[in-house]
Amino acid sequence: MTAEQFAARHIGPDPQAERRMLQAVGYDSIDELMDAAIPEVIRWHGTLDLPEPASEHDALAELRALAARNTVAVSMIGLGYHGTHTPAVIRRNVLENPAWYTAYTPYQPEISQGRLEALLNFQTMVTDLTGLATANASMLDEGTAAAEAMTLARRASKSRSPVYVVDADTLPQTVAVIIGRAEPLGIDVRVLDLDVQELPADFFGLHLQYPGASGAVRDHGGLVAAAHAAGALVTVAADLLALTLLRPPGEVGADIAAGTTQRFGVPMGFGGPHAGYLAVRAGLERMLPGRLVGVSRDAAGDPAYRLALQTREQHIRREKATSNICTAQVLLAVMAGMYAVYHGPDGLREIAERTHRMAARLAGGLRDGGVEVVDVPFFDTITAVVPGRAAEVVAAAAQRHVNLRLVDADRVGISCDETTTQAHLDAVCAAFGVPAAHGETDTRLPEALRRTSDFLTHPVFRSHHSETAMLRYLRRLADFDYALDRGMIPLGSCTMKLNATTEMEPVSWAEFAHIHPFAPPAQTAGYRELIAQLEGWLAEVTGYDAVSVQPNAGSQGELAGLLAIRAYHRSRGEWHRDVCLIPSSAHGTNAASAVMAGMRVVVVGCDADGNVDLVDLDAKIDKHRDALAAIMVTYPSTHGVYETGIASLCAKVHDAGGQVYVDGANLNALVGFAKPGRFGADVSHLNLHKTFCIPHGGGGPGVGPVAVRAHLAPFLPGDPAGAPGEGGPAISAARYGSAGILPIPWAYLRMMGAAGLTRATGVAVLAANYVAARLREHFPVLYAGNKGLVAHECILDLRPLSKASGVSVDDVAKRLIDYGFHAPTMSFPVAGTLMVEPTESEDLAEVDRFCDAMIAIRGEIDKVASGEWPAGDNPLVNAPHTAAMVAADEWGHAYPRSVGAYPAGVDRAGRYWPPVRRIDGAYGDRNLVCSCPSPEAFEL
Amino acid sequence: MTAEQFAARHIGPDPQAERRMLQAVGYDSIDELMDAAIPEVIRWHGTLDLPEPASEHDALAELRALAARNTVAVSMIGLGYHGTHTPAVIRRNVLENPAWYTAYTPYQPEISQGRLEALLNFQTMVTDLTGLATANASMLDEGTAAAEAMTLARRASKSRSPVYVVDADTLPQTVAVIIGRAEPLGIDVRVLDLDVQELPADFFGLHLQYPGASGAVRDHGGLVAAAHAAGALVTVAADLLALTLLRPPGEVGADIAAGTTQRFGVPMGFGGPHAGYLAVRAGLERMLPGRLVGVSRDAAGDPAYRLALQTREQHIRREKATSNICTAQVLLAVMAGMYAVYHGPDGLREIAERTHRMAARLAGGLRDGGVEVVDVPFFDTITAVVPGRAAEVVAAAAQRHVNLRLVDADRVGISCDETTTQAHLDAVCAAFGVPAAHGETDTRLPEALRRTSDFLTHPVFRSHHSETAMLRYLRRLADFDYALDRGMIPLGSCTMKLNATTEMEPVSWAEFAHIHPFAPPAQTAGYRELIAQLEGWLAEVTGYDAVSVQPNAGSQGELAGLLAIRAYHRSRGEWHRDVCLIPSSAHGTNAASAVMAGMRVVVVGCDADGNVDLVDLDAKIDKHRDALAAIMVTYPSTHGVYETGIASLCAKVHDAGGQVYVDGANLNALVGFAKPGRFGADVSHLNLHKTFCIPHGGGGPGVGPVAVRAHLAPFLPGDPAGAPGEGGPAISAARYGSAGILPIPWAYLRMMGAAGLTRATGVAVLAANYVAARLREHFPVLYAGNKGLVAHECILDLRPLSKASGVSVDDVAKRLIDYGFHAPTMSFPVAGTLMVEPTESEDLAEVDRFCDAMIAIRGEIDKVASGEWPAGDNPLVNAPHTAAMVAADEWGHAYPRSVGAYPAGVDRAGRYWPPVRRIDGAYGDRNLVCSCPSPEAFEL
Repeated sequence: MTAEQFAARHIGPDPQAERRMLQAVGYDSIDELMDAAIPEVIRWHGTLDLPEPASEHDALAELRALAARNTVAVSMIGLGYHGTHTPAVIRRNVLENPAWYTAYTPYQPEISQGRLEALLNFQTMVTDLTGLATANASMLDEGTAAAEAMTLARRASKSRSPVYVVDADTLPQTVAVIIGRAEPLGIDVRVLDLDVQELPADFFGLHLQYPGASGAVRDHGGLVAAAHAAGALVTVAADLLALTLLRPPGEVGADIAAGTTQRFGVPMGFGGPHAGYLAVRAGLERMLPGRLVGVSRDAAGDPAYRLALQTREQHIRREKATSNICTAQVLLAVMAGMYAVYHGPDGLREIAERTHRMAARLAGGLRDGGVEVVDVPFFDTITAVVPGRAAEVVAAAAQRHVNLRLVDADRVGISCDETTTQAHLDAVCAAFGVPAAHGETDTRLPEALRRTSDFLTHPVFRSHHSETAMLRYLRRLADFDYALDRGMIPLGSCTMKLNATTEMEPVSWAEFAHIHPFAPPAQTAGYRELIAQLEGWLAEVTGYDAVSVQPNAGSQGELAGLLAIRAYHRSRGEWHRDVCLIPSSAHGTNAASAVMAGMRVVVVGCDADGNVDLVDLDAKIDKHRDALAAIMVTYPSTHGVYETGIASLCAKVHDAGGQVYVDGANLNALVGFAKPGRFGADVSHLNLHKTFCIPHGGGGPGVGPVAVRAHLAPFLPGDPAGAPGEGGPAISAARYGSAGILPIPWAYLRMMGAAGLTRATGVAVLAANYVAARLREHFPVLYAGNKGLVAHECILDLRPLSKASGVSVDDVAKRLIDYGFHAPTMSFPVAGTLMVEPTESEDLAEVDRFCDAMIAIRGEIDKVASGEWPAGDNPLVNAPHTAAMVAADEWGHAYPRSVGAYPAGVDRAGRYWPPVRRIDGAYGDRNLVCSCPSPEAFEL
Repeated sequence: MTAEQFAARHIGPDPQAERRMLQAVGYDSIDELMDAAIPEVIRWHGTLDLPEPASEHDALAELRALAARNTVAVSMIGLGYHGTHTPAVIRRNVLENPAWYTAYTPYQPEISQGRLEALLNFQTMVTDLTGLATANASMLDEGTAAAEAMTLARRASKSRSPVYVVDADTLPQTVAVIIGRAEPLGIDVRVLDLDVQELPADFFGLHLQYPGASGAVRDHGGLVAAAHAAGALVTVAADLLALTLLRPPGEVGADIAAGTTQRFGVPMGFGGPHAGYLAVRAGLERMLPGRLVGVSRDAAGDPAYRLALQTREQHIRREKATSNICTAQVLLAVMAGMYAVYHGPDGLREIAERTHRMAARLAGGLRDGGVEVVDVPFFDTITAVVPGRAAEVVAAAAQRHVNLRLVDADRVGISCDETTTQAHLDAVCAAFGVPAAHGETDTRLPEALRRTSDFLTHPVFRSHHSETAMLRYLRRLADFDYALDRGMIPLGSCTMKLNATTEMEPVSWAEFAHIHPFAPPAQTAGYRELIAQLEGWLAEVTGYDAVSVQPNAGSQGELAGLLAIRAYHRSRGEWHRDVCLIPSSAHGTNAASAVMAGMRVVVVGCDADGNVDLVDLDAKIDKHRDALAAIMVTYPSTHGVYETGIASLCAKVHDAGGQVYVDGANLNALVGFAKPGRFGADVSHLNLHKTFCIPHGGGGPGVGPVAVRAHLAPFLPGDPAGAPGEGGPAISAARYGSAGILPIPWAYLRMMGAAGLTRATGVAVLAANYVAARLREHFPVLYAGNKGLVAHECILDLRPLSKASGVSVDDVAKRLIDYGFHAPTMSFPVAGTLMVEPTESEDLAEVDRFCDAMIAIRGEIDKVASGEWPAGDNPLVNAPHTAAMVAADEWGHAYPRSVGAYPAGVDRAGRYWPPVRRIDGAYGDRNLVCSCPSPEAFEL
C-alpha cells in the first residue's frame, strides 16, 4: 500500500505500528489474528468484488462526472422542498468544518456546549415561529415528524378511537409515511378533503397542512375547535418561513406542529438530509419523542446545556418506548438555526415577503394572460388550471430549466422561494404561453391570518447579522466542543472513524446539493447511477441481494427491515407471526423498532460470557414457535464479541419459520471477513455514519440502508411519492432518503477497494485487541470470544474498582476530558463499564495516549481507594476541570491544582478546556427549560 | 440597504449602531462627518462608476461564468509551475479555514505560535532539501527570490565587480526579474550559456538553475569552484522535488538556494500566489532578507517561536535596508510545509521517483518513435527536437487538452509532475505522431548526482501521515493562534476587515486554481476578463488611468511605481532626477523601495501636529530641485490624519518637476470620498490585502497593484515572459502576479458597489473617531486633522502613562491578549503609542468591548502608578497569562490569579489562552535556531 493510496491515509497505523500492535497482541499477522478471532463457520475467504481503488483525485474526478449528469434546474415544485441560499459563512464554517461535522451526539454535555447552544437556538426558533411551548432538537424529515406527531397524539388523546384524520391537502409523501407507520400500529388513517368532507364523529387526531400542498392558506380555527371537542389532538404541519407572516399554529390552537426546516439554508440534496421539526403545546413536552436540549446547571451553579428528559428515549425505555428515534439531524438543525440567527426576525420576514410578492406577481401575470389560477389565499405556491395542458406546460417550463409540479392532467403547481427571480417568473409565464409577469399585485394573505405576534426576540437572533459577528459566533461555539478534529472518540458501538475531506467535498457541489427529490428523472441520472453503484457495493460487502438507501437513520433501517419481514410473513399468509426475539444485550432501539413494526418483543437472555443463551433461545423458540416472526441480533454482539453460536442461532430461528435480522451496527468488524447475508441472516440495516464514514454531525445526519436477501426484496421501502402498493411502506419522505450525503460512502468504498476495506477491518480489530492487551492488567476486560480475543471494541469493567473506591464510571468518563479525550461508551451494554472502540483510523500514538491516560486514571482511582484522596474531593469526582476552576483565587481541594489542570502526559499548550463543569442533568429535568435562556442567566 | 445586500453583511454596525456612534462623535450623519473630516480641496463628490452591486449568490454566478471561460488543460509546460495534488485535508483546513487565512503577520508571537511552527516546518523543509543552513519563511516567488539572492551575493561577496552571471538555462521569467532589479542598482547582468561560454574573470555572483529550464541536470561542481575562486557567491535555483533525488545545492558548494515551493501542493493559480524560498549557507543567515522564524524562549523558560533578527528588516532599517520585502507568502508556505509534513520524506521521494519515471517513459517512447530527445540527464522535463514542427506539435497536444512548452521553432519542452498519468503520455505521443510510451526505461539520473543524504528527519515529518493525524495537527496549531475569526485585530495601517467567505470560495475552484501562467490565451479568457474588469474598477476607485495587478505585494507595487517614475524621467532625458523625498512618518518600506529603485532618499520632517512640514518640504525641494524625482507620501498620513496640505504638497513637487507617489496603504479612508489620481498624485500602489479584502493569510499573500496616471502608463510592469522592452521591468515572475486570488477583490467590488464602498469608508472613519471619542479621556489621542477628527485610525499616546508607571506599550499590547484582543499597531509611526484601526467590519459591540478593555487597562496602569501593584509584578508586565501560569500550584504574584486570568469583562467560557508566555526575542537572536527544535526541547 503506497502513500498515493487513500487507504494509507484512512488507516491510522502504518505497517511498522501494525507490527508493534500485533506483537503486543501476540500474533504475527492480521490474517492470523482474524483467523483466530472470527469463527470459521462464518468466515468468508473471498475477495470483495469491488472496482480497483481510485486515488482521491480520481475519485473526485469520477464524482465530478456523475455530478455532471445531474441537471441543476430552477426548482418551483415546492411540496416541502425549496430553493434556499445557504449563507456562505454557514456553509464554510458549519457544513464544511470538521469541528462541527465530526462531533458526536452530545451525550457528554460538558464537551458539547457549542452544539447544544446551537440546538437550543433551533428549538427556540421552532417554538417562536410555531407559537408552541416546546420543540425538540429536530426530526429526520417532515414525513417522519408527522408520523411521530400521530403517535404522540394517540398517546395524549383521551379518545380511544383508532382513527387519525389527515387532510387531503397534505404533502403526498407525508401521507405515505403516515400511512406506513400507522398500519402496524393499528391506526386507521382517513385522508379527507376537509374543505368538503365532514370530520368523523370519533377520532384521536387530526393532521392539517399549513399552507396546504396546493398552496392554499386556510383558517383552521373551526377544524381545531371541532377536533378538540371530539377529544382529538391537532397537528399542523407548517412551513416556518410562512409563519413569519401567518398566524402560527400555537395561536390557532394546535397541539402539535411538525415540518421541515430545509428552506432555512439547507440545500435540497435530492431529498435530504435536512432537519424536520416537532413542537408541542405546554403539557405535552414530556411526551415528545427524540432529542430535547434543555438548560440545567453545572457544579459551579452556572447555566449549562444538556439533553433533557433522556429517560423518554428508546435506548432507556426499550420495548416500552413509543418511538425508535435515536438520531436527530443535528448538523442540519445547526445550519437552519444559524440561518435564523444570521437573518434575524427582520431578515426572515423580508425573505418571506419577497417570496410572497413573487408568487403574487406570478399569479397576477398568469391571470392577466388568461390562465386560471385557483382563487384562494396563498403564501408562496399557486395552482394554475390549464385543462388537459398541464403536462405540456410542465414540459415547456423544463425546457426553460424550470421545474414545476404536475398536479394532474389539468393543474400545475408553482412554488416560489428565496431564490426566485424575475427571470424565473418570465420563464414560467413563457411556458404557459402568456406575457411575463411584472409589477406587484395585492397581497394574498388575508388580514385575519396575518401574524401579529413577535418572534425571535432573544438577543442571539439580533446580534450576529454581520458576517464577522456570525463567523466569530460559529468559532466560539465550535471551540466549546470536542470533536474528532481534536482527538480520539473511542465510543464503543459508534465507530467514530475518519470522515475524509475528499469524501465530504462533493456534498457541497451544486449538482448534488440543489436537486429536488421530485425532479424529472432525466435531470437526476448522475444521482441514480451513484445510488445504484452504492447499493450494489453495499450488497457485495454484506452478502445480501438488494439494498435500499431510503432509511435516513439506523432506527429507520431497523423499522424498514422488520416491516419487510412482517410483509413477507403476511405475503405467505402467516399473519400470526408477530414475535420478535431480542437478546437482553441488544441496543434499546431494536426493541422500540420491533414494537413500531407491530411485533411483540420477547427477550432472550445472555449467558455468563455475554453470549446469547442458546438454551434460553431454544426455550423461547419453543414457546413462541408458531408466532415467531424474527430474531434481532447484533453481530459482532453488543459486547464486542464474535459469538460462535451465530450460525446455530440462525438455523434454529429459520427452522422455526422465523427470519433473522442482524443489526449492522458493528459491521466495521466484518467487512471483508464475513458477510451477514451469507452466514444466515435475512436482513440487516447498515449505519453509513459508522462503517461507511458519513460523519456523525454532532448527532445526525445518519443513514441506515436496509439490506435483504432476495425473498425480502419485494418488501423494501416504497417510493413515498410513487403509486401506493409498490414495495413496502415508505420509511422516509424521500425515495432515496438522505441522498445528498451518499457521495460520502460512495467515495469511501471507491477509494478503499477490497484490500483497503479488508485491511481497515483487520486494523480495527487489532486496535481493540491492542487496547484490551494494554489495559487488561489495569481494568478487567469483560467479555471475549475465541482465544480471549475481542472484536472491534472491548469492555473495561470498572465495577470492582467503583466498589472499592466509590469512583464511578461517570467520574472516569469526565476525568478523561481532562486528559484530552471523549469518553468511551458508558454503561452500555453493561452498567458500570466502559466500551472502547478505537477504529482503524486512530494511529498508534493516539491509541497509546489513550491507554496511558486510562492507566494513569487507574492510578488516581487507587489513590482514592487507599484514602490518599478523599472520596468526595478528588480529581475524578471533580472532573472535568475548567480553566475557571483551576484559575480561581481559592483552591481548597485535597489535591494540587496542577493535578486537576494538567494530568500526567497531557498536551499542556494544547489542553482542551471544557466551558462548564460537571452538569447536573436531573436539576434541568426538574426545571425544564428548552429555549434560549436570557443573557442575565449567564451573569456571574 | 437590505439584508440581501452584501454591504450589510460586510459592514459591522447596523443603522441603529451607526446612529449611536455618530451621537458619540457629535455628528448627525456620516456625510456630515466626512464633510468635516476630509479637506474639501481633495473631496470628490461624484458616484463611483461601478456596476450595481450583485448579491452574494449572483456574484458567485458571475464568477462561475468567468471561470467557465478558462480551460483547465493538462499542464506540461513546466518552467517552474507544475501540476500538484493539494491534499484535501490541507485545502479544507488551511486554505479554506479562516483560522489560518484571516491571521495577521506574527508580530505578536505569543498569539501566533501555530503559524510560526508551520513556518518553522517550512524553513526546515527548505534547509533539509537544499542542504543549506538557514532558510527564511518564504519569498514572493522564484523570480524575486533569485533577485534577492543576487543582492545578497553582492553584499556578501568580496568582489567589487558589478557583474552578475546568470546561466542561460535559467527560467526566462527569473532572468527578466533579475534584470529588472539589477538595472537601477547598477548591477551588470550577463546571461551566458555556461555549457559553452566561459565565466568572466571578475564577477560577484553566479546564478544557476537546477535542473535547468530545459530540464537538463548538470553537475555544477566545477562552476561553483570557479566562482568561489573568483570571490563570487553562487546561487542555485533548485526544484525542491528534484532535490529529494538529486545532490542538494548545499552539498555542491552553493552559497544560496532560491526557488519556489509551488509544486508542494499549491495550485498554479495562473502564476500565483505561492511561496518562493531562499536559503543560505552558514555565515550568511544574518544577511537574509525577509521574514525569518526562529526559536527563542518565553518568560517561563519554555521554547517559543518568534520572528528572528527583525532588525534586518526594512521597517526598521528604512533607507539603509537592502531589501524592501515586508510580506512573506505565509499561507502558501504553510501549505507547502504541510504537504511535506503529510507526505514525509518517503512520500516525497516516491512522488519524485514516479514523476521521473513518467518523464523517462515519455523520453523512451518518443525516441522509440523516432523523435530526437536531447540527450542529457533529466529529472522531470525533457526537450524534444522536431525541426520546424514544434508549433504544430504543441498545437496538436493542445487539441488533446495538453499544454506543452514551445521552446522555439524546432524544440518542444515537456514536463511531468505529480499529476501526470499514462493517459497524458499517450496524448503527448499522439501529438508527436508516435505510438504511446509504455514500460520503463533506464533512470536518467546520473549516479554521481544522486542524493545520498537523509532529509526531513525531524519527527514532525514522520508523525502526521494519516488524515486523522494531519487534521488534528492543523487544528492544534490553528488553536494556538488568534485571527479575525476570534475577535478584532485593530491594527493601525493594516485594515484587518472582513474576508468574506463568498469572496474566498472561488479561489478553490479548479478553473481558477489549475491554470499555468503561460497557458495559451485562448484558455485564459475568463481570467483576463476578470483582471481587466478589476483593473478598471480599481482605476475608477482611485482616479488613475491605468492599473497593473502584477506586483504581488505592496512593497513590489511601490517598487513598480517608483521604477515607472524613474523610467518616465529618463524617457524625457531627465536622467539626473534621482532624489525621492520621504516624510519622517513614512512606512520604512517606502525608503527601502526608493533605494531599490536607484533613488537617493531625502527625509522631510513633520511638524508638531504630525503633518508633513511644508516649510521643510520647501527647503528640501529647493535644495534638490534639479534632482527631484518624486515624493512618497501616505494619505491619509501614517498618523491617521487627512492632512490639509496634501494638494499644496502635490503642487510644490510638480512645480519642481517631481512626481507624486501616494502610498495607498490607507486607501480605506478614501474610497468613494477622494481619489488620489484626481487630487494630485501620479502613482499609487494599492494593498488589495487591506482595502480590498484579500486576507492577510498570517503574513501573506499580499497583492500590491500599481495605479498610474496616463503619462506613466507606458512604464507599468512588463510581461516577464514577454519580449523585453515592452513596458517597464518585470516586477514579479508572472504577468498578473498573484492572479489566483484576484477573484477576492473582484467579488468585493462587485458586491459592494458604489454605495456600499462609500458607506464602508464612512463607517471606518466613524469607527475610528468613535474609538477616539471613547478613549480620549483615558489616553491622549495623538494627532488629528480638521475639527479634531481622525481618519480611519487613531493613535493613543501611552508615553505619559509609561513615564508615570513604568508600564510599556508592549505591556499593554500583551495585556490586551488577556482581554481577548490582538494588539493595535505598536510604536508606529510614533514610539510609545498604539495605533488603532477598527475598520468598518467590526460591529459596535466589538468596538465597545475593545474600548472597555482599554479603559480597564488604564485602570490597571493607574494601580501600578499608584504603587498598589509593584512595577515588577503586575498583570501588565506579566501578560499574557497562560492557562499553565494561572493553574500553577504556586502563585506568589502581587495580584490575584483571577485578575491575571479573567480581567474585567472577558468572555470566561470562551477565553483565548495563548500557548506561551511573554517571549524573549533577544535571546533567540543571540542563539539563532531557525529549524524545528528537537522534541526534547519541549519536555518540562
